[in-house]
Amino acid sequence: MSELTSSAAEWDASDELAAVRGRFVLDDGVYLDGNSLGALPAHVPGRVEDVVRRQWGELRIRSWDESDWWTAPERIGDRIAPLVGAAPGQVVVGDSTSVNVFKAVVAAVRMAGEDRDEILVDATTFPTDGYIAASAARMTGRTLRPVAPADVPAALGPRTAAVLLNHVDYRTGRLHDLPALTAAVHAAGAYTVWDLCHSAGALPVGLDAHGVDLAVGCTYKYLNGGPGSPAYLYVRHGLQDRFDSPLPGWNSHVEPFGMRSAYAPAPGAPRGRVGTPDILSLLALEAALDVWDGVTVEAVRAKSLALTDFFLRCVGEYVPAGRVESVTPVAHAERGSQVALRCADAGAVMERLIGRGVVGDFRPPDLLRFGFTPLYVSFADVERAARVLAEVL
Amino acid sequence: MSELTSSAAEWDASDELAAVRGRFVLDDGVYLDGNSLGALPAHVPGRVEDVVRRQWGELRIRSWDESDWWTAPERIGDRIAPLVGAAPGQVVVGDSTSVNVFKAVVAAVRMAGEDRDEILVDATTFPTDGYIAASAARMTGRTLRPVAPADVPAALGPRTAAVLLNHVDYRTGRLHDLPALTAAVHAAGAYTVWDLCHSAGALPVGLDAHGVDLAVGCTYKYLNGGPGSPAYLYVRHGLQDRFDSPLPGWNSHVEPFGMRSAYAPAPGAPRGRVGTPDILSLLALEAALDVWDGVTVEAVRAKSLALTDFFLRCVGEYVPAGRVESVTPVAHAERGSQVALRCADAGAVMERLIGRGVVGDFRPPDLLRFGFTPLYVSFADVERAARVLAEVL
Repeated sequence: MSELTSSAAEWDASDELAAVRGRFVLDDGVYLDGNSLGALPAHVPGRVEDVVRRQWGELRIRSWDESDWWTAPERIGDRIAPLVGAAPGQVVVGDSTSVNVFKAVVAAVRMAGEDRDEILVDATTFPTDGYIAASAARMTGRTLRPVAPADVPAALGPRTAAVLLNHVDYRTGRLHDLPALTAAVHAAGAYTVWDLCHSAGALPVGLDAHGVDLAVGCTYKYLNGGPGSPAYLYVRHGLQDRFDSPLPGWNSHVEPFGMRSAYAPAPGAPRGRVGTPDILSLLALEAALDVWDGVTVEAVRAKSLALTDFFLRCVGEYVPAGRVESVTPVAHAERGSQVALRCADAGAVMERLIGRGVVGDFRPPDLLRFGFTPLYVSFADVERAARVLAEVL
Repeated sequence: MSELTSSAAEWDASDELAAVRGRFVLDDGVYLDGNSLGALPAHVPGRVEDVVRRQWGELRIRSWDESDWWTAPERIGDRIAPLVGAAPGQVVVGDSTSVNVFKAVVAAVRMAGEDRDEILVDATTFPTDGYIAASAARMTGRTLRPVAPADVPAALGPRTAAVLLNHVDYRTGRLHDLPALTAAVHAAGAYTVWDLCHSAGALPVGLDAHGVDLAVGCTYKYLNGGPGSPAYLYVRHGLQDRFDSPLPGWNSHVEPFGMRSAYAPAPGAPRGRVGTPDILSLLALEAALDVWDGVTVEAVRAKSLALTDFFLRCVGEYVPAGRVESVTPVAHAERGSQVALRCADAGAVMERLIGRGVVGDFRPPDLLRFGFTPLYVSFADVERAARVLAEVL
């Protein structure tokens, strides 16, 4: 047994989250793509079956009340809230991340008022945020300005209406300084919209503690909600009355079953709803969130850093120097829960890795991306992934 | 056996769709709320279980390719297309009806050009269409003008950009004249957006035949896709290159995995996509559409009219004159697949009906609404519903 395999065994033996792994359906491979699609929690199929056979099949329309379908968006939002550091009543689930980015950016611009005519967006963002922010800018008569996150403080000014940033960069895994950037945006009198897709469920976010204005995120990565499960929108309490949605569907009406021709928005988180919620996916997500019972985000973060530290160490020992280069920050304060390795033939390498049972993903043009979900990834997985990587390189 | 029960038995005996009823999970009640939530097709739970356990649980991220998740929105759109009279390549599934109304109305206004500054909307519309159209108007700098469908021809003019209409009125069940209204809108140089929520799956729509520009609809009523299943968007071939989405998410990019910072829209139906599609609900819908195998919309329409005719006749014979008043048109050309009865104490009456196993719904302030899904409602159901209604009144 090499020093690294024995280290892995020691870490796994003392891992307080080790038992959580048993809550998921896994196989004999190594799954390091939970930052694209989280693994299936073992109890979810049974819950989905109940939703389909009993709630839909038997109760049918009565389930809107009797199975509490109607309140699912805000109820499940309250399940996500503690994972992102939000008190209840501020998170609502529904629609895709892209649609929620649109709601949040337009609403932020409207809060900022007519005098502020510029929206800043992370220049290195996952593309959809940039496309949607451009549409929000076009439709609100603002200018969109792409800025590297590090340059945001210098770019802020009296023209800034809103700033759309990613908490963790989807390619490099860099964790941006949410508290400092939020404070800088506020000092300039503007509003923040944070995209938490690559941080929620992997590390503490602290939305309330840091005074974030609006945030969005997906639920199919570290929250394991299933393929394309609905996204969420956070609007902090103090701004909810000013949240002026560009998608004021009937579900966000103060009296949705009053069938009024005049729109009057609901108070609180439901104001972020739009149309009829997607019940099958919502309730699969709700079930999936049960894996968090007894788990703290702080414990997840501690393990995440240990996993990524260990992966970098294993790669350093196994892979010939210069064959790959990590683009993920070494400093813990700047690292999410993934490691991205630059490698000239990354696409072909990832295919070979997957053929050997180590599943990560390839981000063009040259990145191997490995996500570490502390709920089900073990240190033995990490050692094996690095070893197989060295073999296929 | 009364004359009506024997008539019902005869109709059921000669019903060419009678066997289709066996494809659904039903109970010993009468379900006349399929225009709110369609009944569960019996094979759907097994298909959903496969999606959850095997596609998600075992294949995980590989299912985007291997289980054809990625192409589901347009593939399932092509399954819906023949039900609404559309050739392939024009329908895409995803998001809620409200979100699709936003895409369609904004896109229609943009097609109409800067000189046309007015949007007409059905004044009697299901509320969400009106709320969303108001937002579309606000965000494109147009004026929204509510008009009764019958008054649309007179309201059209050189200022008209787009007209948002319901094919069937959700309260009264009135079927509007889609061919004539579409022709009138086109004669004025404007664009049509039809909401098919209460017609698709119940009667022929003929989108291509009548030159409709854009259309949207839900899939959880007569298409039986399940609670909150995703909606669809139709953009006719000739307009697809001009479809300029207000929600240009990464799924609508010509090269979605290229991760480009500049947006370039995909050709064809996928241009109407936004974010990551909701796979569980999409694939439940895909399975549900199998109940249409061997069924024509024309046969469904013929049975639908026979069912509603028969219901009106039974109500006329069983219910004391003057106790309820039908607000649904008698003329077949003006009737959808529902009957709405005005009744002072409609809320309480519907509660009693549901207590007796006859499920319809109540639309404030005073309507009893009964939807007739020809795929699974029998003439015996209809007779019984009217009889129980007379008893509880």
